[in-house]
Amino acid sequence: MPTFKITLAYDGTGFVGWQRQAAGASVQGLLEQALADLAGARVTVAGAGRTDAGVHALGQVASFSLENPIAASVVVRAVNARLPQTVRVLSADVVPESFHARFAARAKAYRYRIWNAAVASPFERQYAWHLSGPLAIGRMQAAADALVGRHDFAALQAAGGSPSSSERTVDVAKIGVDGSLVTFDVVGDGFLRHMVRAMAGCLVEVGRRRREPEWMREVLASRDRGRAGPTAPAHGLFLIRVDYGPI
Amino acid sequence: MPTFKITLAYDGTGFVGWQRQAAGASVQGLLEQALADLAGARVTVAGAGRTDAGVHALGQVASFSLENPIAASVVVRAVNARLPQTVRVLSADVVPESFHARFAARAKAYRYRIWNAAVASPFERQYAWHLSGPLAIGRMQAAADALVGRHDFAALQAAGGSPSSSERTVDVAKIGVDGSLVTFDVVGDGFLRHMVRAMAGCLVEVGRRRREPEWMREVLASRDRGRAGPTAPAHGLFLIRVDYGPI
Repeated sequence: MPTFKITLAYDGTGFVGWQRQAAGASVQGLLEQALADLAGARVTVAGAGRTDAGVHALGQVASFSLENPIAASVVVRAVNARLPQTVRVLSADVVPESFHARFAARAKAYRYRIWNAAVASPFERQYAWHLSGPLAIGRMQAAADALVGRHDFAALQAAGGSPSSSERTVDVAKIGVDGSLVTFDVVGDGFLRHMVRAMAGCLVEVGRRRREPEWMREVLASRDRGRAGPTAPAHGLFLIRVDYGPI
Repeated sequence: MPTFKITLAYDGTGFVGWQRQAAGASVQGLLEQALADLAGARVTVAGAGRTDAGVHALGQVASFSLENPIAASVVVRAVNARLPQTVRVLSADVVPESFHARFAARAKAYRYRIWNAAVASPFERQYAWHLSGPLAIGRMQAAADALVGRHDFAALQAAGGSPSSSERTVDVAKIGVDGSLVTFDVVGDGFLRHMVRAMAGCLVEVGRRRREPEWMREVLASRDRGRAGPTAPAHGLFLIRVDYGPI
């Protein structure tokens, strides 16, 4: 009964998100269907990050167990053959049975993408938030600096979200610019629901000079969702990577 | 009666190409429809490069005249409001009436994109040619070097293409690598039908070690379409830029 760790990329545009739902195509649902077809038995897949509808992934990680032995390279080919081209298994490894993609994850890296140009790009319409006005990059980085460290991120989680603790550690929060593309890279030990999009929404408020960079620290300290900026749209967000310790 | 020069980006995926045709959506057709709607009269649009079905553009240039005066900035907004999001007018300028986007063009820059990885990328499926085997980049550059200069490119044009002359000058032919992305950038004073895709197809033959780099020179010298490699698929090709002298 081998257990597998797979790395996935997907274009989230047409999906209701990672998680299987009553209606609509989910990445988890498609994977479980492909694996059930391959294995001839029901298979449950655990994903490291439960990405929302419209959110993309370059390096999502998932785990599952199969009843019968099968080579990892065969898993890659056979599952891809049963998936639409918008979802690809990039690699697969056999791991100890105790491995669980979500519980074993030590850190995740997300990138939020903004297309900052007078006119939208036909190529970025589903992969970046289009903002036509100027963005003050230095101010955005100053605000992002306030996110680094261990904080209670209650002010930056989805309304209604109430996990046992909203404390998380952010290791990296970096703004980058490449032509018209503005990126916000964030790495941390875990993220609350909508947390990265709420961060991006706040940073844009600062970049547009509607708020001062110091405001980011005040928002965090308030632990009040009502104090934060608007949540940035889902289609600019990419799950880039999930890190594990030695497996 | 102002004449306009506009710069356009479009995702070629759903189009029959630049040129208006009896059936199917073309970029020229959509533009002419949007302009007719705006101007209340029939408008003919001339494009610098007649890109084929599936070929994309980051910097296509087109020209047209309108009966009534209208500000260039209004043209950008009003035309974009009448186009699907897959086509965007990036900028517009008023130019002398004698300007013609195709006849005045001095040089064009194209990029051919290859996704060279074991598994295809969900994000590149419509924007790059997926090749899973290894590509010898140094060999591809050596073959590309043979394309630079003034040559008769008859061996690299679409079958049936017979312009008055198939001599063209190529100024730049450069292979680049960025992770899994392999690019072929080519700049020249003009390109025959399918010429960039035929070049890319030949360079890939060399990169796959099916041919020696010297073969590129032999293909050119033969002026025989039957000697060249297969034409690379349309969806990897981008018209990047059109250069003009002082207007």
